[in-house]
Amino acid sequence: MSVHEHKKLLEELGVDVERHAKMMEMGYEGYKNQFMSQTNRPKAMEYFDWFMSEVQGQRIAEINELRKNKKPAIGAFCIFVPEELIVGAGGACFGLCGGSPATIADAETELPRNICPLIKSAYGFKLQKTCAYTQSADFIYGETTCEAKKKTWELLNKHHPVKVMNIPHMKREKDLKMWKEELSEFKEHMEEITKKPLTFEEMKNGVKIVNEKRLALQRLDELRSMNGSDVIPISAKDALFITQISFLDDPVRFTQKLNELCDELEQRVKENNSVYKKDTPRLMVLGTPFALPNWKLHTAVETSGGAIVNEESCIGHRYYKDNVNMEEIKDEDSLMEKLLQKYSSVDCACFTPNTPRIDKILKMYKDRKLDGVIYYSLSFCHTYNVEAKLVTDALEKENIPCLVIESDYSPEDAGQIKTRVEAFLESINFKNMKKN
Amino acid sequence: MSVHEHKKLLEELGVDVERHAKMMEMGYEGYKNQFMSQTNRPKAMEYFDWFMSEVQGQRIAEINELRKNKKPAIGAFCIFVPEELIVGAGGACFGLCGGSPATIADAETELPRNICPLIKSAYGFKLQKTCAYTQSADFIYGETTCEAKKKTWELLNKHHPVKVMNIPHMKREKDLKMWKEELSEFKEHMEEITKKPLTFEEMKNGVKIVNEKRLALQRLDELRSMNGSDVIPISAKDALFITQISFLDDPVRFTQKLNELCDELEQRVKENNSVYKKDTPRLMVLGTPFALPNWKLHTAVETSGGAIVNEESCIGHRYYKDNVNMEEIKDEDSLMEKLLQKYSSVDCACFTPNTPRIDKILKMYKDRKLDGVIYYSLSFCHTYNVEAKLVTDALEKENIPCLVIESDYSPEDAGQIKTRVEAFLESINFKNMKKN
Repeated sequence: MSVHEHKKLLEELGVDVERHAKMMEMGYEGYKNQFMSQTNRPKAMEYFDWFMSEVQGQRIAEINELRKNKKPAIGAFCIFVPEELIVGAGGACFGLCGGSPATIADAETELPRNICPLIKSAYGFKLQKTCAYTQSADFIYGETTCEAKKKTWELLNKHHPVKVMNIPHMKREKDLKMWKEELSEFKEHMEEITKKPLTFEEMKNGVKIVNEKRLALQRLDELRSMNGSDVIPISAKDALFITQISFLDDPVRFTQKLNELCDELEQRVKENNSVYKKDTPRLMVLGTPFALPNWKLHTAVETSGGAIVNEESCIGHRYYKDNVNMEEIKDEDSLMEKLLQKYSSVDCACFTPNTPRIDKILKMYKDRKLDGVIYYSLSFCHTYNVEAKLVTDALEKENIPCLVIESDYSPEDAGQIKTRVEAFLESINFKNMKKN
Repeated sequence: MSVHEHKKLLEELGVDVERHAKMMEMGYEGYKNQFMSQTNRPKAMEYFDWFMSEVQGQRIAEINELRKNKKPAIGAFCIFVPEELIVGAGGACFGLCGGSPATIADAETELPRNICPLIKSAYGFKLQKTCAYTQSADFIYGETTCEAKKKTWELLNKHHPVKVMNIPHMKREKDLKMWKEELSEFKEHMEEITKKPLTFEEMKNGVKIVNEKRLALQRLDELRSMNGSDVIPISAKDALFITQISFLDDPVRFTQKLNELCDELEQRVKENNSVYKKDTPRLMVLGTPFALPNWKLHTAVETSGGAIVNEESCIGHRYYKDNVNMEEIKDEDSLMEKLLQKYSSVDCACFTPNTPRIDKILKMYKDRKLDGVIYYSLSFCHTYNVEAKLVTDALEKENIPCLVIESDYSPEDAGQIKTRVEAFLESINFKNMKKN
C-alpha cells in the first residue's frame, strides 16, 4: 500500500490521512485474503492487483497531476455521467467511494437510516474525508435517477461542490430532447473548470477512448460466458473487480491491460483451463451496482460451489453493453445525439416503463447458457425492488430459477445469504441432474 | 353504516362485498369510538359524521350515478391531479383508499415490504377489492412524484386502468412547459371517458367550484390557529377528518357544509369556547399525507395533552394553500397556465431544490403562534425523510422545538409514539413555564 508515500498530497486534498491509511490497509488486507489467495488465477491479474495497492495512492497522484494542468476531475455516482466528454478534455472521471460499511454510521448523523447503503457510504466518506477520489473531485456530478440521491445532493452540496444532471424518467421524444440539453450543460460545467472550450476533435477522441474501454469489457464478458465452451477462464470476483476499477483507472492503460488479460483468457479457453469445476452452475446477477469493495454476494456464491458469469448491473453489463456509434458522428450536434442514444439505452429501473430490460435479461440468459439468476437489490432501492416483481414474473414464465436477495453492506447477513445461495444452488444441481 | 343498502351496486363494481362490509363496520366502529366520543364538539360535525357512515355507501352510489351519465370518475393518489378539470366535466375526483394496515399483507405478495405504507395499503385494497372508490374509478391517475409509486403503477396497471402524469422534479422554465403539456394530456384522457370535448366554460366552472372548496378549507385553517385568540374551536382529529373527506365528498356540498361549520366555529371563538384547556401546547405537523383512517399521530397528541392546529401535509395545508387565479383566465390556454401556476406552487419534497418549503414552514410557525412542530414521515418515504434534515436544521436555528417521527400504519409503535410525544410536550411545557 502506497498511501504513505503520498501523504503530503493526501493532506493537501484534505484527507484525514491517519484514518484513511488505516482504512486502506484494512481494505487491502481484505483484498489480499479474498483475491490473491485464489488458485489458478490468470497471470495478467497482476496488473489489477497492483492497481488495488495503488488505488488511493498513485492513481490519486495521477489525477491530481491532471488537475495541476487544468484538466477536469469529476466524481460520479452513476453511469449516466458522459465520461467521454471528461476523457476528451484530458481529465479523469471516477466513481466515488461508496461500497464500504465503515462510513455509514457517520452518514446516519445526517441521513435517514433506511436509504440505500451506497448513498450513505458515499456520504460518510465525504464527512470522514477518507476517500481521496471525493477529495480530488472538482465537482461531484449527481443525477436524479433515484430520489434518495436526488435529495442527498442538496445536503452533500454543503460539504462539496455538486452539480446535478436531470435524467428524465420516461423516454418520450420530448424527454430525450431535454436530456440532450443536460449533456450540453454538462460540457459547459466542465469548461468552467478547464477555462477553455472543449473542441469537437477532443470530444471525438474521448468517445473513441471510452468506446475502446467498453469493447474490452464486452470482450471480457464474452470470454466469461459466451466463449463457445463451458470453460469459465476467470473467477467471478476477479471479473467483478476489473469492472469496479474500470470506474477508477486511466481508461487507456486500463483498456490495454484488460486486453492483455483477455488474450490470456482466450488461450485458457483453448486449453480448456477453467477456474471452476465441470458442471458448476452458471449464474447471472441482476440488479443494483456493486461498488468497491462490495464483494459479499460474489464471495457467498463462489464459496458455495456456484459461478457468476455476468453482472447485469450498473457496475457490470449495464455500464458497458452499448457503444457510441462513431460512424454517424459528423459534428458536435451529431456527437451529442449519439451520446444521447447510448445513454438513453441504459435500462435503469428509474424509467417507467422499462420493459426492454426484461427482454434483454431473457436474451442474456439464453446467450450465456445459464442455469439461474440472482436478483440482487441494495436495501431500500425502491425502483429495482418494485421492478423485481415484473422481472421475476417473466423469469417464472420461462421456468428460469431465480433467487431474490436484498441486502445492505453490513456483514451481519452474510451467513444468511450464503445459506440461501447454497439452497438455491442445490435446487439447480438437482434440476440439472434430472435433465441429464 | 349503509353499505348493506348498496350491496347490489357494490357487487356490480366487483367489490368483495362481505369482506368490504366487515371492514367498513370495523372502520365505522373505530370512528365512533375515537370521534363521536369527543366532548364539546361543534354541532355541524353531524354532517361529517353522517358522511363517514355513508363513505362507502351513498357517496359511491352518487359517483356511479354520475358515471351512468357519462361523467368521469377518476381515482387519485396525489394532490397534483387537476381535479378542477374533472369537476368541470361534471365528474368526481376522489382519493383512493390507502390509509389502512388491513390490506398491507395482501400487497406484500406483489410489492416489497420496505416501501411506503400508503402505496402498499392502496395496492392491497385493489387486490382485495375492498375499496369501492378504486372499483368505481374509470382510471387511476398516477404520477411520478415518488419512485415507489412510479414503479407500482406498472404493476397496478395489470389490475386496473392506470394513466401516469409525469411530474418534473425541477421547476425550471422548460420543466414547467412540459408539465403544462401533461395537464392538456390529462384533459384528453378524460375526454376519452366522456366522449365529448370539455369546454372552456366547463373548465372555468370547475376551477370556481374547487377554488371555493379550498377557500373553505383555508377558512377552517384560519379558525383553528389564526383567529386572533388562543381559542382552538375544533379538535385536531375533527379538522383532519374534514380534510380527509375533502378528497371524497361532492365539492359543492362539502364546501357548503364546511362553511356552516366555520360559521359555528366563528361563534365559538367569540364565546371563548375552546376544545382544549388553556395553555395547551399548539403544534403543527409537517410532512407526508394522512390517508383515511390514519389518525394515529393525532390520537397520540390529543391523548397526551397537546393540540395540533395545522397539518403541513398533502392531506392538509399543502393541498389547499393555493388557489387558481381566476381573474387572469381569458381562454383555455391562460386557464391551463393558471392551473400550472397553482400546481407548481406545491412544495412537495419530490422537487430539488425545494427551499420555498422551509421559508413557508417558518412563516406558518410564526403566523400560528405555535409552540413546536412534529415532522412526520411515512416509513421509507425517501424524499420527505432526507429533506427532514434541511427542515430540522432551519428549525433548530430558530430555536423551534421539533420532534421527528417516522412511522407506518401498524398499531405496534403507537405506544412508542405516545411516549415520545409526551416527552416532547413536557419539554415544551417546561420551556413555556420558564418563559412566563
